Amino acid sequence: MTPGTFEILQQAPGAGARLGRLWTAHGPVDTPVFMPVGTQATVKAMTPAEMEDLGFQIVLGNTYHLNIRPGVDIIEEQGGLHRFMGWERAILTDSGGYQVFSLARLNRITADGVIFQSHVDGATHVLGPESAMAIQRRLGSDIAMVFDECAPYPCDRKYACQAVERTLAWAALCARQPRAAGQLVFGIVQGSVYADLRERCARGLIELGFDGYAIGGVSVGEPHALILQGIEDSVRHLPADRPRYLMGVGSHQHMVEAVARGVDMFDCVMPTRLARHGTAFTRAGKYPVKAALYARDPRPIEEGCGCYACRHFSRAYVRHLMNVGEILGIRLLSIHNLFRYEAFVQEMRGAIRAGGFAEYAKGFVEQYGNGRDQPGRDE
Amino acid sequence: MTPGTFEILQQAPGAGARLGRLWTAHGPVDTPVFMPVGTQATVKAMTPAEMEDLGFQIVLGNTYHLNIRPGVDIIEEQGGLHRFMGWERAILTDSGGYQVFSLARLNRITADGVIFQSHVDGATHVLGPESAMAIQRRLGSDIAMVFDECAPYPCDRKYACQAVERTLAWAALCARQPRAAGQLVFGIVQGSVYADLRERCARGLIELGFDGYAIGGVSVGEPHALILQGIEDSVRHLPADRPRYLMGVGSHQHMVEAVARGVDMFDCVMPTRLARHGTAFTRAGKYPVKAALYARDPRPIEEGCGCYACRHFSRAYVRHLMNVGEILGIRLLSIHNLFRYEAFVQEMRGAIRAGGFAEYAKGFVEQYGNGRDQPGRDE
Repeated sequence: MTPGTFEILQQAPGAGARLGRLWTAHGPVDTPVFMPVGTQATVKAMTPAEMEDLGFQIVLGNTYHLNIRPGVDIIEEQGGLHRFMGWERAILTDSGGYQVFSLARLNRITADGVIFQSHVDGATHVLGPESAMAIQRRLGSDIAMVFDECAPYPCDRKYACQAVERTLAWAALCARQPRAAGQLVFGIVQGSVYADLRERCARGLIELGFDGYAIGGVSVGEPHALILQGIEDSVRHLPADRPRYLMGVGSHQHMVEAVARGVDMFDCVMPTRLARHGTAFTRAGKYPVKAALYARDPRPIEEGCGCYACRHFSRAYVRHLMNVGEILGIRLLSIHNLFRYEAFVQEMRGAIRAGGFAEYAKGFVEQYGNGRDQPGRDE
Repeated sequence: MTPGTFEILQQAPGAGARLGRLWTAHGPVDTPVFMPVGTQATVKAMTPAEMEDLGFQIVLGNTYHLNIRPGVDIIEEQGGLHRFMGWERAILTDSGGYQVFSLARLNRITADGVIFQSHVDGATHVLGPESAMAIQRRLGSDIAMVFDECAPYPCDRKYACQAVERTLAWAALCARQPRAAGQLVFGIVQGSVYADLRERCARGLIELGFDGYAIGGVSVGEPHALILQGIEDSVRHLPADRPRYLMGVGSHQHMVEAVARGVDMFDCVMPTRLARHGTAFTRAGKYPVKAALYARDPRPIEEGCGCYACRHFSRAYVRHLMNVGEILGIRLLSIHNLFRYEAFVQEMRGAIRAGGFAEYAKGFVEQYGNGRDQPGRDE
């Protein structure tokens, strides 16, 4: 299949949810999809072989981080990001815009991009629409993201408007840059909590014409109702035949609500980051395996789970490993949490396929984490 | 086969080296053997499945550490150390004597054992021949070690003599303690650099009768010639039909020299500890993959190596991972280093089987690390 082909295999009745398949230069990506984050050319604590075994078809790489260390020269010289990190399936790279505005010491914003100082050594870098696209081309990712400005929350209307105009101007520049072979480029809808700005941004991007559309600046600190509003205000203007990607969102609850509103793609650091903090995701919510409560608990991280960690080890063991700082503890929790995320999107796909997504979503939202965030000993 | 059975399959002509198989309650252990160290109920950064895939038949656990965290109560309650850590092959536990003398804040030595303060929280513990054996029984290890006193280097004759007498008195107590089903117990020859003390210790232990004999207090800081002397002064008095275990020694050079002198078993933290420091072992020596020199090196950690890390990743990638503090870097180097150690003992076994061990050992000692500790770009 030609990269960029997006097959919509099924549309849930009475809901925006759809089952799809996006084709990339490195194979298909079934949607709804959760994309684990491999910031520094590795999904933290995992090998590519383990990621494949878990069923993931796509991971993220971060342009900002990779450009600082090891640098795009080295990755390009080693044959591109896929070969460098030993991952043969699809890769989506962000543009670095988000990190430049959130992580780096910002220096100056110009029409050409942003001058900033690296969070690692304070060295001065410039990143803008042209350089961000050039880096992503040289990394050879399957999906490149336009360089945008993600407005914070809260954000006054005037600044949000400026950020949208800048995002559109930069998107126009990005759209004209050369690409790697088969590389797709996604636009990003900004606009903060302002419905008309999100409409303006979406329409501007569609005019430019992208392979897919992302929703940015959502879940950056605003209350739950505004998150859903931001998704709806963006999705409603986006073409039905193109994939929609909600950036940086990855709580189960948000995902199911976003899928119900027509979102296809997600990424988030939560499964691996919380694993490093000793937290496990389960069907019922999340809980701290690291807690003393589990010191003698012979049950697996999640009862009934089929992942490697749950098939072989007890909470007592994982708790011990985390308690004494052993890498294996992080590994087992990362495996489990990623397994749970993948099982969760597969469950959503199954519900769409079976024509019962609306009921599934309703039941899920009602039950998940409902006072059961921490499974007790008699769960 | 009954646990404790030690088959000597071949004896190298003109050398002390022998090919053997020691049977434990959890299967056979082919010798010469290298036993990776799993201090806190995990070989650092590795899963049990990976350890099995690498071919290891036995790993170590540390009584001192496990007794402090998570505590023997918890491990026993969870079904013993094998089940707790998900390892179905053999486990050897040390007695904790070494750590009590080297790691803890020593309080007082009595005939019954040692009163000390934990290196973790300063809590007061007591460990002695009876409690060390009881803990190892409850952990359910396949091979338990007697509680001994490992004299430091340098050590005056009077103190070394005292330590030997204490070690023998404690060994006599240890020999009388109840054991786990099928558990073997090894005595430990001490005596510092004094040949007659090592003889005295070995003879005393043999009189008590153990399933195997370890050589302790060697490679604790003394020069190379004294290391070999300490091995020879111990081995010469040990029964030929019982396995011999050189404790804590694991440089390739020492191992080949010790095998030539009739040693069968080794353990060492080096492959995994040096992995965490960014150092790789190769056939030719060891080198720091972490060094800037390898930032653009497309070759695997070791050329011609068949391990997972070398089949899929470049030095440039591993160097990047270590440089940015990614767990995967430690994992890949641990896999490679352990693969190399296992390949090394298998090579020694092959040389003994083929009747060419003396030549192999000579060639190895002459070549290894001979100015080639750090492979160059044009290796």
